[in-house]
Amino acid sequence: MVVDKSYKIATLGSHSALQILKGAKDEGFSTICVCAKGREKPYQQFKVADKIITIKNYSEFEKIQDELVKENAIIIPHASFITYIGYEKIEKLKVPYFGNKKILKWESDRNLERKWLTQAGLKLPKVFKKPEDIDRPVIIKFHGADGGKGYFLAKNYKDFQKKIKLHTGKKYVIQEYILGVHMYAHYFHSPLTNETELMGFDKRYESNVDSLGRISARDQMALPKEQVDPSYVIVGNIPIVVRESFLPRFMQKGENVVKISKKIAPPGLFGPFCLETVLTPDEEIICFEISTRIVAGTNPYINGSPYTWMKYNEPMSTGRRIAREIKLAIQQNKLNKVLG
Amino acid sequence: MVVDKSYKIATLGSHSALQILKGAKDEGFSTICVCAKGREKPYQQFKVADKIITIKNYSEFEKIQDELVKENAIIIPHASFITYIGYEKIEKLKVPYFGNKKILKWESDRNLERKWLTQAGLKLPKVFKKPEDIDRPVIIKFHGADGGKGYFLAKNYKDFQKKIKLHTGKKYVIQEYILGVHMYAHYFHSPLTNETELMGFDKRYESNVDSLGRISARDQMALPKEQVDPSYVIVGNIPIVVRESFLPRFMQKGENVVKISKKIAPPGLFGPFCLETVLTPDEEIICFEISTRIVAGTNPYINGSPYTWMKYNEPMSTGRRIAREIKLAIQQNKLNKVLG
Amino acid sequence: MVVDKSYKIATLGSHSALQILKGAKDEGFSTICVCAKGREKPYQQFKVADKIITIKNYSEFEKIQDELVKENAIIIPHASFITYIGYEKIEKLKVPYFGNKKILKWESDRNLERKWLTQAGLKLPKVFKKPEDIDRPVIIKFHGADGGKGYFLAKNYKDFQKKIKLHTGKKYVIQEYILGVHMYAHYFHSPLTNETELMGFDKRYESNVDSLGRISARDQMALPKEQVDPSYVIVGNIPIVVRESFLPRFMQKGENVVKISKKIAPPGLFGPFCLETVLTPDEEIICFEISTRIVAGTNPYINGSPYTWMKYNEPMSTGRRIAREIKLAIQQNKLNKVLG
Repeated sequence: MVVDKSYKIATLGSHSALQILKGAKDEGFSTICVCAKGREKPYQQFKVADKIITIKNYSEFEKIQDELVKENAIIIPHASFITYIGYEKIEKLKVPYFGNKKILKWESDRNLERKWLTQAGLKLPKVFKKPEDIDRPVIIKFHGADGGKGYFLAKNYKDFQKKIKLHTGKKYVIQEYILGVHMYAHYFHSPLTNETELMGFDKRYESNVDSLGRISARDQMALPKEQVDPSYVIVGNIPIVVRESFLPRFMQKGENVVKISKKIAPPGLFGPFCLETVLTPDEEIICFEISTRIVAGTNPYINGSPYTWMKYNEPMSTGRRIAREIKLAIQQNKLNKVLG
Repeated sequence: MVVDKSYKIATLGSHSALQILKGAKDEGFSTICVCAKGREKPYQQFKVADKIITIKNYSEFEKIQDELVKENAIIIPHASFITYIGYEKIEKLKVPYFGNKKILKWESDRNLERKWLTQAGLKLPKVFKKPEDIDRPVIIKFHGADGGKGYFLAKNYKDFQKKIKLHTGKKYVIQEYILGVHMYAHYFHSPLTNETELMGFDKRYESNVDSLGRISARDQMALPKEQVDPSYVIVGNIPIVVRESFLPRFMQKGENVVKISKKIAPPGLFGPFCLETVLTPDEEIICFEISTRIVAGTNPYINGSPYTWMKYNEPMSTGRRIAREIKLAIQQNKLNKVLG
Repeated sequence: MVVDKSYKIATLGSHSALQILKGAKDEGFSTICVCAKGREKPYQQFKVADKIITIKNYSEFEKIQDELVKENAIIIPHASFITYIGYEKIEKLKVPYFGNKKILKWESDRNLERKWLTQAGLKLPKVFKKPEDIDRPVIIKFHGADGGKGYFLAKNYKDFQKKIKLHTGKKYVIQEYILGVHMYAHYFHSPLTNETELMGFDKRYESNVDSLGRISARDQMALPKEQVDPSYVIVGNIPIVVRESFLPRFMQKGENVVKISKKIAPPGLFGPFCLETVLTPDEEIICFEISTRIVAGTNPYINGSPYTWMKYNEPMSTGRRIAREIKLAIQQNKLNKVLG
């Protein structure tokens, strides 16, 4: 297959840009990496960017839009792109964008997200709208950019009242605390084949909470409380496979989420997405969030995941899968189906 | 090498069927996946099954035996197969079966298993036959299908007496509690070459015990006890390598286990097996169980493990290794050596 | 490329010898594995050693030096080699040695190491020279071969005084306790290209501390203290990727360390090295140690890491990267640049 040379793949230099650009090159595209000053090194050393455009900071992204349009670039969004550029500005981008922009608000608004996932038949943790309703252990999560710092557990309403005092003025959500292990499931929905492919799984590596268990309970009790309070800041990802008997349910959930998305935000969710779940000792799959774009949890699989090796028999990262979809769309004259 | 097309590889659609079937196809076999209704999706999407036979539930397996025999299928057992079909029915199966059926009772009976492993020179955790004998911290494990739920620690006899009251009527074993980290070692013994190959290692991911450490000791103490009681339900597997200086001992243990198996259940254990160990801070390898068939811990290595890449220089999963053995046996006219 | 057949690659059979020898063979070298009696099996089964030289114990290594010289072998050092042979004897080795021997003392002396890393601009945990100065939680680490056993936390000076009594006569260092997650970054510096390549990351698996969190806080408090005291004995390694936005800083740190090494121990650090870091919830990278040779943390990547797959598009372990460098040096007539 020959790629139409006139299209290029571009993304912002962060998050999962390495696999996006590497995958694009593997599919035959020229690549462009837009980097904040000082962050170019990975994209140079790993030789994934044919061109690097350096901007002072991310607010300058709009300024280089015309250059991207001129290069005939298609931009691949990721979480950092969405955070840095901002959901509203993305809607107005002129440069061709892989994905359905209309789905973004369904991800970013916790109420809409909940509505969507519930309609898709997923089990979600209970949310308490009023603190007075707390009738079981809960986790309090804060909104916004603080990225997992300050989240806390409360065993009941009284405990909540005491602990929330340290966080005046912050917006938060009160979620039922589900004791189980985290499992992040990666999918790719193709609007060309209408198949929802399971791409792999990961387990996040979060600071400091993933080192907490390495301190003995005696030491934790002895240390000052603020020294051992957990934070949930993601700093890495660990490859993992799920118990095979869970796969039919995981695959069904992915398909259901896509199905409902077609109703709420036509033409629906496509490209990569992720269901963030907790698996309980009762073998339930509880979904606490959806990401409607590539997640960093796919980064361990730059050379393919155990799952993509089965389907593709060649190294197929999620980044490469995106480029493959664009390539096929170009060849089938359906590029409009993958741009949003 | 050309495979005798008349043989097909079949297994039950669960546990490690994906790598078994993918491996069979990589070795040139046609494949059959027997699925419980509603569980076909993974085997369809990953394109590993040339034929899918759907049964209502696993008790119907015997009904489709004749079909498998007619297809000239060889069945590959895994833990779910053995659990669902049952050890006694397996002994009477007519369809050709990869492995030594006579070894199954040595695995399933804790006393026989202990005798076997002890004779092989492995270090095992002490087992207390009478609760009154408890003289150190112990873990109480329940038999049967509950799969790791309810296991508990007791620091002494008195503690045991108090805690066991919540579990009246259950069968259990009282094991010395060894504080160390788990390491699951995967092997493959070839009856054709008489070599015991080391295939890889994994670390299980268990719910909820692997999330327990993410709750601060203060929060654990504050939460209701039943909210933070550990369960050991396996929900995934994480790839890992062992410290290289441990390898000679791991390899020796594998060989010893095979050697003794030849005496207790001729022609002995062959095909894949797993030693489930704990590594202590004193660098001891304590073995607490043996699995005499493929384990799900090999699932991260569908595209090969760090160890199999060295020996084979091509993607060699445990599933594929099974198919390779069958292929070689057919070619050497020794199929009887790998069927039990 | 054709390798000069007259050179062979040799190492001691332990630590990371499998990937060193496998990598050497992949680059076309003949290989020699020097094994302590009884430890030959892995190097035989995985077929990575063209020749195995068995010695009774490691103190006999010098005796077989002449044989290695006659074979025209280049020895590749690793941590076990350095521990077993000893830093002073290594300086006097006659057999060609990959790496800069002069850097070893900068690694092995905690004060020199600290000076080096500080000059390179890395953030280090505070060290308290006098116990009386302790003004925050600290970890007490013992010197020497005990490998992580007995390390303990102290919340303040008083706590330190009480706990140190159990360790009379031992040498130790008092380090600020940083609560964050560990991340081990692997590098390779090429003296031929002057590039510092990022090779991958791992997370260590330590006994018993990595199982501690699986015991509920209640159980930990109930069990005798000595039963649940943490040890930090490395028994394995788990593959991991770092959050992509951390990469520019990790790469810069690697380059800085090399830059300073050229001043303190010309021609400076080259070949593989590792920065052992803790990532905090504030997204700081704290470096607590440097290893100036291949680390066992690269063992999960015998078939390449997510990072080396990008740069090389073929399986490139750190072991193979070493052999590649030697091969290129031979071809460019610059072997002296990689021997120290």
